[in-house]
Amino acid sequence: MKIAVVTTGDEILQGIIIDTNSAWISERCHMFGHEIVYHASVGDSEKDIINALKHAETIADCVIVSGGLGPTVDDITVESAAKGFSVQLQFDQNAYADIERFFEKAKRPMAKTNKKQAMIPEGGKILCNKFGTAPGVQVKFGKAIFFFLPGVPSELYQIFGDSIEPWLKSQSSGYCEYKVLRCFGMPEASIDEKISDIDLCGCRLSFRVKFPEVLLKIICRSDDKEVAAASIEKVAGQIKDRLQEVVYGEGDLGMAHVLGEMLTNKGLTISLAESCTGGLVSDLITNVPGASKYFKAGIVSYSNDVKEKLLEVPKATIETKGAVSEETVLATASGIRKISNSSIGIGISGIAGPEGGSKEKPVGIVYMAYSTKDEEKAFKHFFSGDRERIKLLASMTAINMVRLYLTKNINLQE
Amino acid sequence: MKIAVVTTGDEILQGIIIDTNSAWISERCHMFGHEIVYHASVGDSEKDIINALKHAETIADCVIVSGGLGPTVDDITVESAAKGFSVQLQFDQNAYADIERFFEKAKRPMAKTNKKQAMIPEGGKILCNKFGTAPGVQVKFGKAIFFFLPGVPSELYQIFGDSIEPWLKSQSSGYCEYKVLRCFGMPEASIDEKISDIDLCGCRLSFRVKFPEVLLKIICRSDDKEVAAASIEKVAGQIKDRLQEVVYGEGDLGMAHVLGEMLTNKGLTISLAESCTGGLVSDLITNVPGASKYFKAGIVSYSNDVKEKLLEVPKATIETKGAVSEETVLATASGIRKISNSSIGIGISGIAGPEGGSKEKPVGIVYMAYSTKDEEKAFKHFFSGDRERIKLLASMTAINMVRLYLTKNINLQE
Repeated sequence: MKIAVVTTGDEILQGIIIDTNSAWISERCHMFGHEIVYHASVGDSEKDIINALKHAETIADCVIVSGGLGPTVDDITVESAAKGFSVQLQFDQNAYADIERFFEKAKRPMAKTNKKQAMIPEGGKILCNKFGTAPGVQVKFGKAIFFFLPGVPSELYQIFGDSIEPWLKSQSSGYCEYKVLRCFGMPEASIDEKISDIDLCGCRLSFRVKFPEVLLKIICRSDDKEVAAASIEKVAGQIKDRLQEVVYGEGDLGMAHVLGEMLTNKGLTISLAESCTGGLVSDLITNVPGASKYFKAGIVSYSNDVKEKLLEVPKATIETKGAVSEETVLATASGIRKISNSSIGIGISGIAGPEGGSKEKPVGIVYMAYSTKDEEKAFKHFFSGDRERIKLLASMTAINMVRLYLTKNINLQE
Repeated sequence: MKIAVVTTGDEILQGIIIDTNSAWISERCHMFGHEIVYHASVGDSEKDIINALKHAETIADCVIVSGGLGPTVDDITVESAAKGFSVQLQFDQNAYADIERFFEKAKRPMAKTNKKQAMIPEGGKILCNKFGTAPGVQVKFGKAIFFFLPGVPSELYQIFGDSIEPWLKSQSSGYCEYKVLRCFGMPEASIDEKISDIDLCGCRLSFRVKFPEVLLKIICRSDDKEVAAASIEKVAGQIKDRLQEVVYGEGDLGMAHVLGEMLTNKGLTISLAESCTGGLVSDLITNVPGASKYFKAGIVSYSNDVKEKLLEVPKATIETKGAVSEETVLATASGIRKISNSSIGIGISGIAGPEGGSKEKPVGIVYMAYSTKDEEKAFKHFFSGDRERIKLLASMTAINMVRLYLTKNINLQE
């Protein structure tokens, strides 16, 4: 079934509130195997509402509308719709009784204006609103089924769950399965190029950039749930073969989470000596619940004397090689590892900008290193963008550096 | 001028991402006195894109489109639009040169697929994208001016600000002035209650929660620019009188920025000893360009031995009072101040959850303290929400603690 979602309200059009109802409704419709073809938002204007609903009716089998069911003068969605499709409004005794009961229960007097909420298009069916006065309405206009729902999220969720979900389920055939592959370290265009010729086995592939990551979603619709799942696995396998370590995980868990699981499984601990990333790597790592099991300490050393004093970096190293150098990050990585008595130490230093760059060391240059009792290695990167973007890119690259190190050193243990 | 906003992307229609671009664009158009008549979102389907753009062209003078300018096969917005309005695409040498430069600067090879991003509809003008490869496009289709922008917010904001805002301004009559007051530490409903009866002097007031801050926008339209500005100042003055120190700043600069300016003006330096906030305070402070002038060091001490070893917290304090206690944060604040030789030391310790809470010290409890050579003080807070929310609330509250301390100690100097 093709579904259109229309939300109404001047506040949405003026950018005062962000329309979250459309995404909420769409996610559920999509889950039941329906295709959402259109979202629209219009203001509290009869003409605009009619235009949008008539357009929706031409492209969808079902139109879900939210907003404008309240009692005030600017709540005109249902009456505009009825007018647009030349259907009469009728006073609905049951709807009115529900509204009366709501006010009785709330021990508040009912305003005259609430009576208008019981006016329902001919042929329509009311959908019980447990949390407010505006009943939902289900009605056929033209060739599409329309659902009218309040814009207040809590009321919308309840009516949708109780009255629309069962109907959506009954209207859908087959299954929609999906899997998300999480990628880091290769831009969207290159990923696309690398996998453009794989056999999609009837699946659909969508790309989403969640900067600086790229999420690949493999979607399969089938009458047979197992067939869908098997097709997805085949496609996922091909993608992983092509992209290798660029695919760092699946589903909802981000890279810091994946790293956390690797550290936990191997019984390792980690500590950080950050400079240009300013604490962001620590922040990302400690966003993962339970990070205290493997994260011991982070030092953000913005000044050179802190690098010398706390991280025990030789003064000569900073003086001869500079704070932003391979030698310094190797020294801070090893310093923080020893001081905190961790399995792995990480050192990062660079120039996040916008000031502080030079010809030899431009804004965006970042050195990073890891240090373990057996091995240490430094890397040099150039990132582009503003300060926050460089911080984020450098931080994710540092986390990925540890992930790759652990992937390749599968037997590393304390 | 009537404006329509169209966003594209399967992920929006499937409810995977919430479309925030429409609200962002609309807010700005509205500010310049234009009327937004329509929002629509469609999937990455040629037919649906053409349908939506053709509908928009019939109801608006200007159509702003975001999304689908990337290099991959599902990025088809511009080519679909050109097809729908029967306009040829042409290879644009300047656009191509910009894309080449982007990859050169990033020291990455350009994928073949990026070439497609330089195909521009005949008669179109490219709008420079400083942060990505997809140039914006301005072109007249039918009777409306169309703007095509990338869906990535940072890229969209830059192109919109540089290329569309000046044009929107030129198309509007009269003046629309505004001022944003930034508030922290009081919920939206309480702010509303406190200021509900002030004289708005013809201005409009809008509330926006940018968690955990509340932004109050005072907007005034007038034929006379100075009259508008004066009205805004009157309203801003009344709001500041009512809300006092809850209003921490104006405009775009966040609290870490405001704190940075205070520290710079007073010639003070700061260092942090974080525990439950995990580096987020350091991250927020170092997001401000030039933070290296006043930020010396941060230590994220997740383990007790790091607290003892690096921050010189007496073992007895942690053993008798616990790591999450007034005594410990006072000790870490004073420890980091002395070690880093800073004017102000901050200590934070708490339980961010979801595990680790107890009856006496539930999830969400956070102690924080500041320490200077003259004074030290600790505070106890309870925050609610998930781990990331508690980290953010605690971090912002800690930055605000220093701001309030400096506001009250206006003569504090090194």
